[in-house]
Amino acid sequence: MTISRVWRRPTLGAVAERAGVSTATVSNALNGTGRLSEATRQRVLTAARELGHAQATTARAVARGSTGVLGLTTTAYGDLPVSYTEIPYYAQLTLSAMAAAHERGYMLMVMPNSLSPWMWLNMPMDGVIHVEPRTDDPVRALLRERGIPMVTDGRPLRPHWNDAWVDTDHDAAMSLLLDHLAESGARRIALSQPVHDDAYARLTGRAYTSWCAEHGMPALVEEYAVLPDYFTAEREAVGRLLDRDPRPDAVIGVYSDSGHTILAAARQRGLRVPRDLLVACVSEDPDYATTNPSITTLSLRPDRVGVEVVDLLISLINARGGVNRHRVIQPVLIPRRSTRKPPPNPRRRERPE
Amino acid sequence: MTISRVWRRPTLGAVAERAGVSTATVSNALNGTGRLSEATRQRVLTAARELGHAQATTARAVARGSTGVLGLTTTAYGDLPVSYTEIPYYAQLTLSAMAAAHERGYMLMVMPNSLSPWMWLNMPMDGVIHVEPRTDDPVRALLRERGIPMVTDGRPLRPHWNDAWVDTDHDAAMSLLLDHLAESGARRIALSQPVHDDAYARLTGRAYTSWCAEHGMPALVEEYAVLPDYFTAEREAVGRLLDRDPRPDAVIGVYSDSGHTILAAARQRGLRVPRDLLVACVSEDPDYATTNPSITTLSLRPDRVGVEVVDLLISLINARGGVNRHRVIQPVLIPRRSTRKPPPNPRRRERPE
Repeated sequence: MTISRVWRRPTLGAVAERAGVSTATVSNALNGTGRLSEATRQRVLTAARELGHAQATTARAVARGSTGVLGLTTTAYGDLPVSYTEIPYYAQLTLSAMAAAHERGYMLMVMPNSLSPWMWLNMPMDGVIHVEPRTDDPVRALLRERGIPMVTDGRPLRPHWNDAWVDTDHDAAMSLLLDHLAESGARRIALSQPVHDDAYARLTGRAYTSWCAEHGMPALVEEYAVLPDYFTAEREAVGRLLDRDPRPDAVIGVYSDSGHTILAAARQRGLRVPRDLLVACVSEDPDYATTNPSITTLSLRPDRVGVEVVDLLISLINARGGVNRHRVIQPVLIPRRSTRKPPPNPRRRERPE
Repeated sequence: MTISRVWRRPTLGAVAERAGVSTATVSNALNGTGRLSEATRQRVLTAARELGHAQATTARAVARGSTGVLGLTTTAYGDLPVSYTEIPYYAQLTLSAMAAAHERGYMLMVMPNSLSPWMWLNMPMDGVIHVEPRTDDPVRALLRERGIPMVTDGRPLRPHWNDAWVDTDHDAAMSLLLDHLAESGARRIALSQPVHDDAYARLTGRAYTSWCAEHGMPALVEEYAVLPDYFTAEREAVGRLLDRDPRPDAVIGVYSDSGHTILAAARQRGLRVPRDLLVACVSEDPDYATTNPSITTLSLRPDRVGVEVVDLLISLINARGGVNRHRVIQPVLIPRRSTRKPPPNPRRRERPE
């Protein structure tokens, strides 16, 4: 691993001395506060510029790999025709990583969702956050070869001694969902299961199967391929689940759209949620608070994940060793109407859609 | 203005020729698809690496200012102790700019919310999106001096012939809000008015005053300073509005928290919304759909703004002239319960909070 130094700015004192003014004046000039003459402001900026260039010209900073830049990308769904920033989990993760990077004085370079190695070969960066690597992700190999520190969100499926990752506690996640559904009376809980070569799809499925075995409940699974069109594929998988005889009394989806997909499939079959079918999904989408009925979700806390990946990456960049390279985040259940058996009340008015 | 070229990747054909394989194999190797031997994959990556380095080594790319990187920052609230990514407008703008940049093959470098010029002096970038510049923003002067193309979100208050900006149609925004409130029966519509040296605060206030004059309604304004603590300052300003005699029958806030602030102030005084007071605010916060009552908001469409600033910036980077440098975005009103006079129905049950 390359040990690179963080690009630091000169002290106010150094600038003040060079410009022949007080540190308060330097602070005002640099922050755009206070009342200064234009001449004074220019003198301070010139001094700052000179010291800044002397300390770390771009070329030298790039040459020694110390840039103040953290890269972030996901390449897991490189072939999907959607931007990852439009998926709430990635959006929240990105924003939270951004805030955490800024707080530590780093810029965050958000890379296109591409497995093409050009930018990975060339871009100057101190470290990279790689969201949900695939099993044989070429970007991972390229960055390792360049010696650029890397943290993944989601543990790699083929572990390497050097891996650093932040990941959800997948067993806890599935237990939260399944225990909740069982408490709401479900006895035949089905899983709509994506097939993809990342850790999330596999570990989630494994946690579901274990829970069912431990609790003596049937494992009711329909699989669907994530690429090229998870949306259509999941709709069909959910259809197959709901057409089973006997029918499941609850369905779990593990992607952000799953709740909408399951709700639509239930409606199409005249099934009322939650009376005939309980529905829950793993999602960060706030829209599930206002669907009809509102849908129970499990949050993987991308806001926490974003902070932890940045913190772990900066530790790796600055430390020579002794960094604990694995961090596990606890998920949170947000119970809503879709998993509540309504009280038997004949006078209860159904809300229109 | 510096005319810089976009950093382009070599064609698949060039890599295929160098590696002695088909373009389909190159595509598979670079995208991690298909079934390839490790040796073939390595051969393709080596060829790609060699061509990539030959075409644009980092040092040369940096030297000629062509990096494939667009910077984005806001410096308007440099002194506020919150991250701008936590404010829904900036979060949505950033995510949408990110998606637009990626679609065009650019990376987006999100800079800390800082007026300190160090990174502005040194970071290699093809262009910068500057969100809500202040009147004498030092970053603006520095970038102009470096010859880096720049687009601002929000027109600069002191125009320069070279300015390129995307901005809201502020007159349309205020008319949408005020017409809607007037149609809901309001005759004394008050404005909680921030004081800050950016275009948004000033143009919004001006549009309000014009509308009131045109419609023969009183302009009821209380001002508050945005720095250092707009939250407390606005609470006090709204308090002064609601304590006026006669009281306003509607209050508009123009920041994202304003709706919550006005609702809390109304509750504190025993005023029911919307029965005793109509409430609306300019915000992108989805939480206003689920407050009690839900609050009418005006969206400035940061999703559109993000796309337009990226498109305009890339036009400036690549074009030698003839680019229309000003773009205006139309806002959208989202009416909710807080501006609806409830029908006089004594049997209507009030929902608990």
